[in-house]
Amino acid sequence: MQFDVIGVGVASWDIIGVTATPPVIGQKQPLAGWAEMGGGPVATALVTLARLGLKVALFSAVGDDRYGTAIRAELHRFGVDTSLMATRPGSSHVAIVLAEPGSDRRTVWWYNESTVLANLEFPIELATQTRALLVDSHLPAALTAAQHVRAAGGHIMIDAERVNPTVIELLPLCDDIVVSANFARTLTGLSDLEMATRALVERYARLVVVTAGEAGSWACNGGEVIYTPAFPTQPVDTTGCGDVFHGALLFALLRGDPLPIALRFASAAAALKTRGLGGRSALPTLSEVEALVRG
Amino acid sequence: MQFDVIGVGVASWDIIGVTATPPVIGQKQPLAGWAEMGGGPVATALVTLARLGLKVALFSAVGDDRYGTAIRAELHRFGVDTSLMATRPGSSHVAIVLAEPGSDRRTVWWYNESTVLANLEFPIELATQTRALLVDSHLPAALTAAQHVRAAGGHIMIDAERVNPTVIELLPLCDDIVVSANFARTLTGLSDLEMATRALVERYARLVVVTAGEAGSWACNGGEVIYTPAFPTQPVDTTGCGDVFHGALLFALLRGDPLPIALRFASAAAALKTRGLGGRSALPTLSEVEALVRG
Repeated sequence: MQFDVIGVGVASWDIIGVTATPPVIGQKQPLAGWAEMGGGPVATALVTLARLGLKVALFSAVGDDRYGTAIRAELHRFGVDTSLMATRPGSSHVAIVLAEPGSDRRTVWWYNESTVLANLEFPIELATQTRALLVDSHLPAALTAAQHVRAAGGHIMIDAERVNPTVIELLPLCDDIVVSANFARTLTGLSDLEMATRALVERYARLVVVTAGEAGSWACNGGEVIYTPAFPTQPVDTTGCGDVFHGALLFALLRGDPLPIALRFASAAAALKTRGLGGRSALPTLSEVEALVRG
Repeated sequence: MQFDVIGVGVASWDIIGVTATPPVIGQKQPLAGWAEMGGGPVATALVTLARLGLKVALFSAVGDDRYGTAIRAELHRFGVDTSLMATRPGSSHVAIVLAEPGSDRRTVWWYNESTVLANLEFPIELATQTRALLVDSHLPAALTAAQHVRAAGGHIMIDAERVNPTVIELLPLCDDIVVSANFARTLTGLSDLEMATRALVERYARLVVVTAGEAGSWACNGGEVIYTPAFPTQPVDTTGCGDVFHGALLFALLRGDPLPIALRFASAAAALKTRGLGGRSALPTLSEVEALVRG
C-alpha cells in the first residue's frame, strides 16, 4: 500500500483574526491576533493523520492564485502528499475566520466551485493504493472515489456537514458516518442527538458518530449509544476542531482501538488543537493525545 | 515642486468579504464577493489624488511580509510615488472588512505598530518639494512633517479619526482640519455636529470639516456652517469613502474651488467610490465626479 489514507475534499486557505469584541457594523475595531493557515475538513484531518505518523495524500483542486500556492506548500510542509492535487483557473476556496477566545468563531467563506472543483476524476487505480478513504460533503468526485475504494475493500469514512444529493448517495458506501449535529438533525428531523444517532444507525447499518463541539459526541455501531463528553478547554480558537476529531478518530479505528477508546482519543486530539489559532498551529503529537486520554 | 501632495499615514492591506448576512458565532456562512486591495486613510486619499491627475508620494512604512509587498506594488500601479516608503521587520497593517451591501461595513484590523511605524523621520528637505501635506492620526512622524511643511509655507490637511496626543499637537499646524463625527464629538463633548463644528473653528481658527458618512458633512471657515448632504447611493461597499472624500476635497481646495463647491465635489467622489469593493476598485475620474456634481 502506498498510502494509509487518501482524502477527497476541499482545501481552503483560512485568514484568521482574533476578535477582542464582536465586529460591529460601522466600526473599526482592533484584533488581538492574526494568522493565515490552510484549512478545509478533509485537508486538516489529513494533516492530523500525518502528524500522528500515517502516510496520507489529498485528492483535490485549488485555483491558480496565491491561495492555491500557499495551500499546496503548507500541506507539503506538514507531510501530506500533494501530487494528486490539480491546479485550475479560478479562485481557491478561502475563508475569513473571526475567532472569539473562550467562545467559538464566526466563519465566512468564498470560493468559485464551478471552475475549480467540478469534473475532477478519481483514478480507479488509486483505490488499491490506500487502506482508507476520507471524504467530505464538498467535492462531487468523492462519490466515484468511494465506489472504487469500496469495490477494492478499503475502509471509508465520511465527514458530512451539508445535506446534498452527493452526500445522500455517499452515505451507504461508507463504513464510518461522522456527521455534525446540524446535519444529523436536518437529515432525521430529530432534535435529540441520541435519538438522531439511533435513527441514522437504523437507516444505514453503519458506525454513526454525531459531533456537537463542546457538547460532546454520540456514537453507535448497532448496540447502545455511546456518549463521549468533550475534554474541557478554554479555546484560543475552535477552527478545525471537527477536522482534527475526524483525523484522530480514523487513526484510532485503523489501528484497531475499541470504539469508546477511539472516541476518547479523537476528543482529546480536538481539545488539544484549541490551544492555537487555525486548524494547524497546535496539532498534538501521538504522545500528547495519549497523555491527555490517560488524564 | 516635485510633488503636489505628500501624504504621511498608514498604508494597509484590506481583505474584503461581502456578507450576504451578518456573521454569526458558531456558523459557516458563504460570502457574496471577495477582494484584496490596498487601504489606509492617507494612502487611499493619495490614490484618489493621483487618479484626479496630481503628482503624489506616500511617506510611510510597511512590514517585510507579503502584505507590504502588495501594498507597495498597488500604490505604484496607481501612480503614487513609493520611494519615500520604508520596509521594516514586522507585520504590515492589515484589515479584514466585511461589507454589507446597501448598509455599511464591519472592519477589524491588525498591525504591529511598535516595530514598523515607530521612529520614522520626515526629511526636512522634502518640505520644500511639495505644495501640500496630508496627514492622518496614525503616524507619529506626521508631527515633524507638519512642522517642516508649515515652516516652508505649504498647505496642510489632517484627516483625524482618533484623539491621541500627536493629533492634539498636529491640529494647530493644519490649514484644513477634517475629522470624523466621532472625533468631533469626543474632542468637543458636543453631540450636535453643527455645534461641534463651530466649537472646533472657535478653538483652532482654521477650516473645519466634520464628516458623517451618509448623513453628510458640516464645514466652517469662520462664517456660517455649511451643511453638504451626501449624494444618495446604494453602496456595494463603503470602505474608503472617507479617504476618497479627503483626497477629492484637497484636490478641489488646491485648485481654488470655493468651499461649498469643493465640498460638493468631495461628496460626489465619495459617492461614486461606493460602486465597487474596497477603497480603490471604483475610484472616479475627474470627468465622472464633475458629471455627478452637475447632476
